[in-house]
Amino acid sequence: MPPTAIILLSGGLDSATALAFARAEGFRCHCLCFDYGQRHRFELIAAQRVAESLHAAEFLTFKLDLRAFGGSALTADIDVPKNRDEHEISSGIPITYVPARNLVFLSIASGLAEVRGATCIFAGVNAVDYSGYPDCRPEFIRSFEQTVNLGTKAGVDALKSGSHAIDIRTPLIDLSKAEIIRRGVQLGVDYSLTHSCYDPDSTGGACGACDSCKIRAAGFKAAGMKDPTRYR
Amino acid sequence: MPPTAIILLSGGLDSATALAFARAEGFRCHCLCFDYGQRHRFELIAAQRVAESLHAAEFLTFKLDLRAFGGSALTADIDVPKNRDEHEISSGIPITYVPARNLVFLSIASGLAEVRGATCIFAGVNAVDYSGYPDCRPEFIRSFEQTVNLGTKAGVDALKSGSHAIDIRTPLIDLSKAEIIRRGVQLGVDYSLTHSCYDPDSTGGACGACDSCKIRAAGFKAAGMKDPTRYR
Repeated sequence: MPPTAIILLSGGLDSATALAFARAEGFRCHCLCFDYGQRHRFELIAAQRVAESLHAAEFLTFKLDLRAFGGSALTADIDVPKNRDEHEISSGIPITYVPARNLVFLSIASGLAEVRGATCIFAGVNAVDYSGYPDCRPEFIRSFEQTVNLGTKAGVDALKSGSHAIDIRTPLIDLSKAEIIRRGVQLGVDYSLTHSCYDPDSTGGACGACDSCKIRAAGFKAAGMKDPTRYR
Repeated sequence: MPPTAIILLSGGLDSATALAFARAEGFRCHCLCFDYGQRHRFELIAAQRVAESLHAAEFLTFKLDLRAFGGSALTADIDVPKNRDEHEISSGIPITYVPARNLVFLSIASGLAEVRGATCIFAGVNAVDYSGYPDCRPEFIRSFEQTVNLGTKAGVDALKSGSHAIDIRTPLIDLSKAEIIRRGVQLGVDYSLTHSCYDPDSTGGACGACDSCKIRAAGFKAAGMKDPTRYR
């Protein structure tokens, strides 16, 4: 049996690339996608297409109603900011931040890892383009890894022998968006299947003006590649 | 304004007592209760009654469908074990274990703490009666605390000055069930409002035979107090 991994899959560019990394390493991939009250469904549709195109063993959608808290433009009734420049995008914690999102997503992935017998969790976390998010930093990821191994029976046994039962893998953490795109294309990711826009039209066409669209377009430009995004 | 705390409230005896500790320390208490596909609703009803009786500022039910994973007698279609002796109850990880439950619950509580501006999370975790659960040990709790403070902006700022933005408080962690009950009675907990049984009848009457009923009954006996539990 090949080793098993849980992949946090959002339908965006980064997590699709993380899945491609895991597949290239020979993992049997169980993709976990969160339906957390996003404003639109295109991310979820994109995630499923990406999982199928990269031959994932499972695609699981987990409902998680983070709207119950409020507090983010991605889940609450707050306008998504538009046409911000690079400085504005990279400074501070954006209004689109969802409280403790990576912590919650990784925790649920850990539960699924226990049930599926997975030894790895892959997350498309990136510390370069999202410097404003504390939960995208390597210190956070390493601390979470320690915590999850202390909180599971398999982890406690493994720690005694100096290893981990569950590794948290973030292959994109130090890559620029251009590097992510170049590696993804090499690994066979079809980026036309991914969805990045925070504020698409009713057919899924991207706005081209939100932070996510801006970062994506700049990444393809820097990689010297054509962005297959369909705009409104 | 009094300091604000998030309380993980299940409707059982331990978390009710944790709420009473937080109230006694003067916290404004936001109670977070999980609707995670339990077999019955009596826990949720009990949690709300407990929150009201101890004058919580908020009672929030968060839906979390852990049944999507399977793997536990509390959420999947597996029989709850009955009439086990003390040795059987305390040895190994029980079938009623829900994968990564405390990790997931604490993570979601951390998100709510960020949104509500809480500086503490109280959890009725207990390492004495649940020695089989790795995620009830102090090492796990301290590691989680470190992780959550590394994963939030307020936490990162506080760590720089050697403190925490969010403390994880487990006032029951070293107490026996009898000590928990004695302290709870002193603090005004009405244990007739709490619900412990894993397998109640259709009116909420306790079975008296599952591990949870056995531990509860032994606790009241050791405390020299009358158990107000209503049996079938």
